[in-house]
Amino acid sequence: MKMKFDGLLMIPGPVHLHERIIRAMSRQMIGHRGKEFSEIMEYCVEGLKELFGTKNDVYIISGSGTAGLEAAIASFSKLRRITCIDNGKFGDRLGRIASRYTEVDVVRFEWGKPVDLEVVENSLAEGSEALAFVHNETSTAMLNPAKELAKLAKKYDALVIMDGITSVGGDEVKMDKWGIDVAIVGSQKCIGIPPGLAAVAVNDNAWNYYSESCPFYLDLAAYRKKLADMQTPYTPAVPLFFALEEALRIIEEEGLENRIKRHRLLSKAVREWAGEAGLRIFPEPDELSDYSNTVTAIRMPEGVTDRDLRGTLLGEYGITISGGQEHLKGRIFRIGNMGNIGKRQMIATLAAVQDVLMRYNACRPALHAAIEILKEL
Amino acid sequence: MKMKFDGLLMIPGPVHLHERIIRAMSRQMIGHRGKEFSEIMEYCVEGLKELFGTKNDVYIISGSGTAGLEAAIASFSKLRRITCIDNGKFGDRLGRIASRYTEVDVVRFEWGKPVDLEVVENSLAEGSEALAFVHNETSTAMLNPAKELAKLAKKYDALVIMDGITSVGGDEVKMDKWGIDVAIVGSQKCIGIPPGLAAVAVNDNAWNYYSESCPFYLDLAAYRKKLADMQTPYTPAVPLFFALEEALRIIEEEGLENRIKRHRLLSKAVREWAGEAGLRIFPEPDELSDYSNTVTAIRMPEGVTDRDLRGTLLGEYGITISGGQEHLKGRIFRIGNMGNIGKRQMIATLAAVQDVLMRYNACRPALHAAIEILKEL
Repeated sequence: MKMKFDGLLMIPGPVHLHERIIRAMSRQMIGHRGKEFSEIMEYCVEGLKELFGTKNDVYIISGSGTAGLEAAIASFSKLRRITCIDNGKFGDRLGRIASRYTEVDVVRFEWGKPVDLEVVENSLAEGSEALAFVHNETSTAMLNPAKELAKLAKKYDALVIMDGITSVGGDEVKMDKWGIDVAIVGSQKCIGIPPGLAAVAVNDNAWNYYSESCPFYLDLAAYRKKLADMQTPYTPAVPLFFALEEALRIIEEEGLENRIKRHRLLSKAVREWAGEAGLRIFPEPDELSDYSNTVTAIRMPEGVTDRDLRGTLLGEYGITISGGQEHLKGRIFRIGNMGNIGKRQMIATLAAVQDVLMRYNACRPALHAAIEILKEL
Repeated sequence: MKMKFDGLLMIPGPVHLHERIIRAMSRQMIGHRGKEFSEIMEYCVEGLKELFGTKNDVYIISGSGTAGLEAAIASFSKLRRITCIDNGKFGDRLGRIASRYTEVDVVRFEWGKPVDLEVVENSLAEGSEALAFVHNETSTAMLNPAKELAKLAKKYDALVIMDGITSVGGDEVKMDKWGIDVAIVGSQKCIGIPPGLAAVAVNDNAWNYYSESCPFYLDLAAYRKKLADMQTPYTPAVPLFFALEEALRIIEEEGLENRIKRHRLLSKAVREWAGEAGLRIFPEPDELSDYSNTVTAIRMPEGVTDRDLRGTLLGEYGITISGGQEHLKGRIFRIGNMGNIGKRQMIATLAAVQDVLMRYNACRPALHAAIEILKEL
């Protein structure tokens, strides 16, 4: 019998873990109301502020990124109307969450199409008091223009809520400088730990929109109150805090600038390889706001099914990549490069994808293009 | 320099971990949409059904017990009024959560006082469509009469929601038999894994009260839909599922009946030791519904402060026990025996408490009383 390969996750989260992260979780439980936990929490909060580019509070919630999003939207929903940008699966989710709390104007663009600032401005001008958008939309592997959107919103004095779940910690985010009032990150993306934590960064302006009728568990006022003691209002997922502390040490050692550069080079390597291999990036370059720096989408070649590619990759190499979501299912595949992924894992992944696609005469050998880019790492 | 002792948590959660639980979490991440995760999830769901005493669905939420409580209350809040029993900190929390979703009649009893069924019945008769209560109230170390309360509620055709966060997996819970419609458990209590997961068991009747205006993240309809594929609607805290799977294997090996017996013997040992040592259990025996079988509260002796006892215990022995909460702060101390605690840890804890209290002439040697009870383990 052949050896069963151990797994390598190359999806846009959850991500493959650095062995230091795994070890950090391997310890006995500690109380969450004691000094040791508070010290860990303080280190985590300070480290996250760096990643968000903020001097304001960061609240850590035990739950998925969606819990963080809902906490951000619901806690600051004392407003007449919110404009939500939907040009992908997670933009759609923003609108669906917000509609539970206030009137929503969803500004829709075709998945993969860039945001049209004029259309957004029209929605704001019609009386929205807030704008919510996804920074890095993994479903389409696009980066939305956060800086420009925040600037536009501020023209109408609107609260700016940014889903940074898959950008914070891997791409440039400058909350305070860009004028973002509330931003959210998930633990299992660029930060590089397992899923189970979300963090929400909040500036003073956001508190003008605070609504008491938000969910009890997701009420950020309770998190703010407990942050004074470096505690959480409800029992936190302690092992994930151990992991987060270690992840932030790894980031400190690497340096945030180097980390962002690494993410950019890794995604660039995927794009260069794809181009050289004769594959088509999704979306087309001229349709684009910007490519995501943390995940790349590639059109599935004619005659190759999701199972042909992803199934074989998993079965023969133990590598998991993502397919398309919703109506993009079977039409694209996606390779993530979030967290603590290095050039070795990326080269192996591209080599494996290339091996499988070449069996269908669906691509040319092009690893040299990726290797050339990754020399800098 | 003296060795710094490693920690032993003897609080009513989070609990000290069995080394198998720690090892179960020490592994590389896997995708949460793949076959391996679904198999783990299926084992977890089936195992949890046993602990709840139900044949109905169990939904696993990544979040604290409070998230589970809110999911249970908010998802089934299409009702005119709910009666919430408050005879402790967590009963109080139930009422505060419920008041975000519907009209609440809080039936209050002094902390440590038993539930007066007549008063509860009056509230139900005045037109409540649901009854919510805490089964095992850790703040006062009391067990509320779940079976009797459910029976009473059914007389008025009211939905029964039970907070079983600190009883399920350590004490007898027979949801289906008792007529409980919805029950909640937390991961870091009797089940014996770290905090970060909650599970909600739901019968068919509860769905008659389903309300779409519950929080997005805590909407149990979304969890129900995904349970068909043995998945979760949002990215789950995967390492805690690894831990839960192992914890349920440990429970299967021990046998649920043996486990409940062990919890009962451990708490009985604390009570017998306390009586023999000249300490006073809180609440007084004649005030009682029933003692909790998973945590014991003891009145702090005159002249001994929280810091004297708990501070010294932690500093000299590395053992953490709990103090009182809210107005019971400094007036009681609490020893938990949830999860995978054995006689060795309990004897060590009682010996250490006794050592400290004897320095204040606040108790007599009485370990033999505990050892006698624990012979059966």
